[in-house]
Amino acid sequence: MRELEERIRRDGIVEDGDVLKVDGFLNHQMDVELFGAMGREWARLFAGEGVNKILTIEASGIGIACIAAQAFGVPVVFAKKSRTKNIAGDVYRVEVPSFTHGTVSTVIVSRRFLLPGDRLLLIDDFLANGAALEGLIALAGQAGAQIVGAGVAIEKAFQPGGDRIRAKGVRVESLARIKSMSPGQIEFC
Amino acid sequence: MRELEERIRRDGIVEDGDVLKVDGFLNHQMDVELFGAMGREWARLFAGEGVNKILTIEASGIGIACIAAQAFGVPVVFAKKSRTKNIAGDVYRVEVPSFTHGTVSTVIVSRRFLLPGDRLLLIDDFLANGAALEGLIALAGQAGAQIVGAGVAIEKAFQPGGDRIRAKGVRVESLARIKSMSPGQIEFC
Repeated sequence: MRELEERIRRDGIVEDGDVLKVDGFLNHQMDVELFGAMGREWARLFAGEGVNKILTIEASGIGIACIAAQAFGVPVVFAKKSRTKNIAGDVYRVEVPSFTHGTVSTVIVSRRFLLPGDRLLLIDDFLANGAALEGLIALAGQAGAQIVGAGVAIEKAFQPGGDRIRAKGVRVESLARIKSMSPGQIEFC
Repeated sequence: MRELEERIRRDGIVEDGDVLKVDGFLNHQMDVELFGAMGREWARLFAGEGVNKILTIEASGIGIACIAAQAFGVPVVFAKKSRTKNIAGDVYRVEVPSFTHGTVSTVIVSRRFLLPGDRLLLIDDFLANGAALEGLIALAGQAGAQIVGAGVAIEKAFQPGGDRIRAKGVRVESLARIKSMSPGQIEFC
């Protein structure tokens, strides 16, 4: 998606250690007009697929998912990183490692909001190692929900996550796929 | 706002210990159509106030804030709960206690995204003890930004947060104000 690629070139900052900072428009300060264009693009790509719910993971996926959901006319469910020691109620749960933070989070979704008949679109801001999407796929699997596909804003195509998710048979639509990057230089696929 | 009150009556669940569960439409599964109506209502209430940015706090404020931001035509900044041990870069920070989780979070915002000239609308899903909004007010104060007001989805008017925030001179517009509640019974102001 040209608009997103241009924005990444203009405002993205590549730092050491394969870090791409896009916090000026994607995951700290958020450009909701750009999110609207991204949502419409996913709605075009997944038209006719019967998506009835969007599933994302806190925190930075939530804004993108909510605005994309408007284009689909469906609700959003976000998987929560559990902070409470005693998790009350009936939840699906999975462990998701964070390479950025060097931690493992327990991520939960209420059983009430993932159902066997659901046709889910997964949404996230980044796809790098694929741990977050794999967590969402596992949660959907526990519920017996169908996954229609995954909408990703930025895929680091030089990291293994995209191949791993696609190898599971999940259709991944990344709006910007980065082939390589270094400080001052970003090449898209 | 009648539409939100009716939804709370229909789908909200009052549990022991002053807990109101609205996770079916507000803060776990999210009804983005309802969020759109809420955003338009805040845009009407704060029309002409020159809001140029919305500030919220992760996680459950983000979706509401993003959709409200569309009605204002402004970007969103969300304050992050810091999970990284070494916080890189130049950030404003504040400690925010969570009564729900019995924890204290360090909450940060990059200095690049809160500026002295900003006219901020604060958005959050709940106002009870006021700790989250007080944290956002403190962050805005560190930046020298102006606060135009706070848009809250649900205020528990029987808890002290609303009075505390209004006593600071902040205009608070809560779309549903709960006067009292008990299992099976919710009374609005």
